[in-house]
Amino acid sequence: MEYQQILEEIHEEVKPFIERGKVADYIPKLAAVPKNKFGMAVQTLDGKLFTIGDAHEHFSIQSISKAYTLTLALQFAGEEALWKRVGREPSGNPFNSLVQLEYENGIPRNPFINAGALVLVDVILSHSKDAGQTILNFVRERSDNPDINFDMEVAASEKSTGFRNAALANFLKSYGNLHNNVEDVLDTYFLQCSLHMNCIDLARSFLVLANHGLSPWSGKQIVTKSQAKRINSLMLTCGTYDAVGDFAYRVGLPGKSGIGGGIAAFIPGRLCVTVWSPGLNSNGNSLAGTLALELFTTKTGMSIF
Amino acid sequence: MEYQQILEEIHEEVKPFIERGKVADYIPKLAAVPKNKFGMAVQTLDGKLFTIGDAHEHFSIQSISKAYTLTLALQFAGEEALWKRVGREPSGNPFNSLVQLEYENGIPRNPFINAGALVLVDVILSHSKDAGQTILNFVRERSDNPDINFDMEVAASEKSTGFRNAALANFLKSYGNLHNNVEDVLDTYFLQCSLHMNCIDLARSFLVLANHGLSPWSGKQIVTKSQAKRINSLMLTCGTYDAVGDFAYRVGLPGKSGIGGGIAAFIPGRLCVTVWSPGLNSNGNSLAGTLALELFTTKTGMSIF
Amino acid sequence: MEYQQILEEIHEEVKPFIERGKVADYIPKLAAVPKNKFGMAVQTLDGKLFTIGDAHEHFSIQSISKAYTLTLALQFAGEEALWKRVGREPSGNPFNSLVQLEYENGIPRNPFINAGALVLVDVILSHSKDAGQTILNFVRERSDNPDINFDMEVAASEKSTGFRNAALANFLKSYGNLHNNVEDVLDTYFLQCSLHMNCIDLARSFLVLANHGLSPWSGKQIVTKSQAKRINSLMLTCGTYDAVGDFAYRVGLPGKSGIGGGIAAFIPGRLCVTVWSPGLNSNGNSLAGTLALELFTTKTGMSIF
Amino acid sequence: MEYQQILEEIHEEVKPFIERGKVADYIPKLAAVPKNKFGMAVQTLDGKLFTIGDAHEHFSIQSISKAYTLTLALQFAGEEALWKRVGREPSGNPFNSLVQLEYENGIPRNPFINAGALVLVDVILSHSKDAGQTILNFVRERSDNPDINFDMEVAASEKSTGFRNAALANFLKSYGNLHNNVEDVLDTYFLQCSLHMNCIDLARSFLVLANHGLSPWSGKQIVTKSQAKRINSLMLTCGTYDAVGDFAYRVGLPGKSGIGGGIAAFIPGRLCVTVWSPGLNSNGNSLAGTLALELFTTKTGMSIF
Repeated sequence: MEYQQILEEIHEEVKPFIERGKVADYIPKLAAVPKNKFGMAVQTLDGKLFTIGDAHEHFSIQSISKAYTLTLALQFAGEEALWKRVGREPSGNPFNSLVQLEYENGIPRNPFINAGALVLVDVILSHSKDAGQTILNFVRERSDNPDINFDMEVAASEKSTGFRNAALANFLKSYGNLHNNVEDVLDTYFLQCSLHMNCIDLARSFLVLANHGLSPWSGKQIVTKSQAKRINSLMLTCGTYDAVGDFAYRVGLPGKSGIGGGIAAFIPGRLCVTVWSPGLNSNGNSLAGTLALELFTTKTGMSIF
Repeated sequence: MEYQQILEEIHEEVKPFIERGKVADYIPKLAAVPKNKFGMAVQTLDGKLFTIGDAHEHFSIQSISKAYTLTLALQFAGEEALWKRVGREPSGNPFNSLVQLEYENGIPRNPFINAGALVLVDVILSHSKDAGQTILNFVRERSDNPDINFDMEVAASEKSTGFRNAALANFLKSYGNLHNNVEDVLDTYFLQCSLHMNCIDLARSFLVLANHGLSPWSGKQIVTKSQAKRINSLMLTCGTYDAVGDFAYRVGLPGKSGIGGGIAAFIPGRLCVTVWSPGLNSNGNSLAGTLALELFTTKTGMSIF
Repeated sequence: MEYQQILEEIHEEVKPFIERGKVADYIPKLAAVPKNKFGMAVQTLDGKLFTIGDAHEHFSIQSISKAYTLTLALQFAGEEALWKRVGREPSGNPFNSLVQLEYENGIPRNPFINAGALVLVDVILSHSKDAGQTILNFVRERSDNPDINFDMEVAASEKSTGFRNAALANFLKSYGNLHNNVEDVLDTYFLQCSLHMNCIDLARSFLVLANHGLSPWSGKQIVTKSQAKRINSLMLTCGTYDAVGDFAYRVGLPGKSGIGGGIAAFIPGRLCVTVWSPGLNSNGNSLAGTLALELFTTKTGMSIF
Repeated sequence: MEYQQILEEIHEEVKPFIERGKVADYIPKLAAVPKNKFGMAVQTLDGKLFTIGDAHEHFSIQSISKAYTLTLALQFAGEEALWKRVGREPSGNPFNSLVQLEYENGIPRNPFINAGALVLVDVILSHSKDAGQTILNFVRERSDNPDINFDMEVAASEKSTGFRNAALANFLKSYGNLHNNVEDVLDTYFLQCSLHMNCIDLARSFLVLANHGLSPWSGKQIVTKSQAKRINSLMLTCGTYDAVGDFAYRVGLPGKSGIGGGIAAFIPGRLCVTVWSPGLNSNGNSLAGTLALELFTTKTGMSIF
C-alpha cells in the first residue's frame, strides 16, 4: 500500500479521537490552539514526502526540541563528560522529577526530563556565545529550512509562569550541576521550547537520526553512526515522559513528544513519521497522535522489534 | 566476518573482565558457581548455531524465566485483562519495588520486576492445574529440548531465604492482586527461577520472539506477530532491572537478564545471542556478559536503531 | 468544676459527632460494632474514678496495646539494644510504612507503627516462653484486673486477612530485624491487638505512666521515672499514627489510639483520661474521641504545654 | 539545687563535647564562628536570670526565628486560614523537604521546615508594608531589647548561595502557595534567618510562650493561652528538624533549634532555658547544646511528661 493512502486511512480512523484529548492550557498561546487540528507527514530516506491534514501548519514543538539539544550537547561536551551530569535511565516515576533529583543528588535521570534538558542547555551555554542562535542554526540546518524561528511570545509566557522549571534550575544549581547563571539557563530553555515548526520541518529534521547520523540534506555526518544509534535508543527508552513503556508497546518506534501535541518518530534506515494534534492524553502525549502512529506501524507492518 | 570469528574475538576481549563482577551469593548454590565462567551462543533464524566458551554448561536462569511466564500469562489471560493487573512502564527506581508498589496501589510497574512476575505466576496458577509443569513444558517446547528441568535444590534454597519475595506476595495479596494462595504463588515462582539451562537452550528458546512469534522448531505460531513485537518492546524497556537505559544505550537490543549471570538478547528477523558469566555489575546484570553483547552489536554493526 | 460534670458536658457536646466517623470494617467483628457507642473514663492519681456513657463496655483496644509491649520490650532488651532495632521519630508519612522501612533499611521509624510493634513482639518472644501470656499478665497487673482477656475470634480474623502485616514481618525478616519465626511474631502480634478492655481498664492501666513509673495498684516501680518520661514523650510524638501534630495541637497530651476507636491519654502527675467511640476520622483516630479529649483539656484548662 | 550551680555543673560536664560537632560552613560568616563556644541562659517566669559561658555573645539564630514568624503569621492570618496553607505534622523524612512538598501538592508539612517558613514570610508580606521591620520590631518587643538587629552580611551571604531555598520558593509559587513575589519572599526569609542575638535575648523572648501568651515585659497578651499552648505543642512535635522524636525523648521540652548552634526551650509555667554551641550533631542540632538541655532536665527533674 502507498504511504499516501495509509495516511488517508489513518486520518479517517483517528477523526473520532481528535477532539478527545485535553489541550495544554498553562500559557494562553498554547490554550488558544484549536483542538480540531491534525496533521501528519512521512519523509522517506529516499527523498519522498507524504502529508495529510494540517501538516503545513506551525505549532510549538516544546519538548521535541530536547532531541536537538541532546545532539548539540553531545557534540560540545562529549559522551563521557555529559553522562557524568545526566543519567540515561527512564524516569519511571508518576511523581514529578524533583523527587528523583533529590534521591539522585542532583543528577537528572535522563536528558529528556526537564531537569536533564536544563543541564543540556547549560552545556550549550558553556560552549557557545549565543546559545539561542546556536540552537536555531542547528535546527534550520537539520530541517534544511532557514525560516524556522522561535515564537518569542510563547517563550515570554513560559518564563512568566515557569516557576517549576525555576525550582528545578535552582535545585540543580544547589547541587553544582549548573555552571552558568540560573536565569540564563532558564531563558535559553524557554527559547528552545518555543521553536515554531510544522510536521514537515520535524520529519526532515529527524531524518539524520533515521539515517545513522548522516544528513541527507547537507551530506554531512552530524553524529557518528554509533552516536545516532545511542540517541535513538534514548528516544525509545526515555522520549515520551512517563509513558515510554506504553508508547514502545503500542508504537514500537523511537520518538519524542511535546506538550504542544507534536510527536516525531522514525524507523532507522527507512523514514521519519511525524504527527501533530494538540489534544493530549493523560500522559501528556498527543492522544490522536499516538493512535495515528500506532495505526501507522500496524498498517505498514514496520517495527524495530 | 563470520559469527564464529566474532565470538572468538569477543571472548579474547572480555577475558580481563570475566572475574571482575560480583557473583550472587544470597543462596549457597549460586555462591558456589565459579567466577571464571563465560559462555556465549548465537542461533540464527536460518538455523545456524555458533558457540564459544562455556556455552554448554547449565546455570540458573533466574529472572530470564519471566519472559516465558509473560508469554504464558498473555496467552492465558489475554492482553486486556493482564494489563489491568500489571503495568508496562520501566521501574526507573533505584529503590526497591516495594516503594513503587505502594505508590501504585498494588499494581506492579511491569511484568519483569519481582512483584510483576508474581502476578504472572498467579495468572498461570488460575489457568493451569500444575503451574510448575505447565511452565516446564512451555520452556521445553520453546527450546525443543525435553531434558530441561528445574533445579529443586536452588528452588528450596530460594524459598528458605525468600523473605523479600514473601513480603511482596503478601503485599500484592493485601491489595487483592493475587487470586491464589500466597504460598502456592511463591512456590511456583521459586520453581520458575530455578530453571537450569545453558546458553544454547536459551538462544533456541528465544528464537520465537526474534521470529515474530512463529516457532522455528514446531512451526507453530506461539504468539501473534503483534504480541511478539509487544513482548520484545517490553524486554527493551523493562528487561534489565534498573539499567534498561544503559543496556539499550550500550547494546541496543531487546533482552532479559538474570541474577545467575545469564542474558538473552535478539535481533528481530535475524538471530538470538545469549551469554553467561556469573560476575554481576552494580545493576545486577552480568558484567562480562553485557560487555560481550555490546561488542557483538559493534562488531556485527547490527542494531534495531 | 467537677470531673463528673465535665464528662457530662462533653458527652452532650460530642453527641452530634458520635456517628459521623467511619467504623473500621476490615474484619467482621470490628465492622459489627454499633457506631453509636461513646464511653469515657477519668482516673485520677489520688484514686478517684469518673465515667460516662459506655465506659464499662469492652472493645478491641488494637494499637493501644503497643504502649504495653513497648514497656515490656524496654524491660527485656534495655534501652540501648532496643533503639538499635527501632527508631523513635514520628513517621510523618502519608504513605504506608513499607516505604519508610525500605528507605531506612529495615529499621522501623518508631515502636508505634506496625513494623515497630512487630519488632517489640520479636523482643518479647526472645525473652519469654509464652509471649502471649506474658503480655496478658502484664496488662492484668497494670489494670489490676485479672479478668482481662484476648478476643480469640478477633485475633483469628486479623490473621486471616493480615497480609499487609505479613508483608511487613517478612520484610523485617529479610533485613534480619526479626530474630524469631515470622509466623510466631505475627500470631503474637494479632493476639496483642485483640486485647478486649473497657475505658476503665485502660485508664487504670495507664496510670503508671502518669505516675512516673510507679504502679498505684501494686506500689511497684514498673519503669524508672526517666523511662516513664521517655515512653510518654514517644506517645506524644508518635502515638497517634500520622496525626501526631494535629493531636498534639488540639489535645496537647501524650496518648495512644487504636483502630477500634479507643484512645488513652494522660496528664503526668494528675490523671488518665480514656475514651471510646468506634467512628474514625480520616487519620484512623476516633472522631468523637479526639474531640472529647480536646474538650476535656479546654474545659479543665489542663495541658502539658 | 540552685540554677546557677546547675549551669556550672552542666558546663563542666559538656566540656569534652563542645568541640565534637561540625560547625555549619555553607556561608563564610557561619564557618568562621569558633567551635569552642558554649553559652547558656535560664530566665525564670519570676524574673530571675542565670547565665554561664558565652551567654552574652551574639550569634546567628537562623531557624529559631521561625518560632517568631509563626506567631506573627498566626496573628495576621488567623488559625483557620494559616493551616490551609501549612500542615502541622512532623516531617519525619530523612530526605529533603522538596520530596514532601511534591507528595503533598505544595503544602509544607509544618511551619518549621524551610518551605513552611517561606509561607509564613509570605503571610507577613501580605499583611505588612515592611515585613523585615515588622519581624524586627516583634523580636525586639518580645526580648524587651531594642538593640537586636539583623546581620546584613549573613543575609547577603545566604542569598548568594541560597539556591535550594530559591528552588523551594519557586516550587511553592508553582503550586500557588506564595502570593507575593518569589524574590521578596526570599529576601525577607534570609533577613529573618540572620537575626543576631545572644542566649539572654532568646531566653527573654520565649518567656511569653512559657507564660501562656502573656508578655512578662509589656504585660500584653501576645497570643491567647490556647494559641500559646498550640505553638508550644508544634515546637515539641516539629521544632528540631528530623530529630523531634530524639529531642523529645532525651530533653522532653518544647524547643526550637537553629543551624547556628542555638536552641531555645522552655517549661511552661516555669522558665526558659537557652543554649548556644556551634558544633552540630548529624541532625543539624547543636551537639553540646542538646546534651546540655538533657542534663538540665535530668538535674532539675523538670519535664512536661
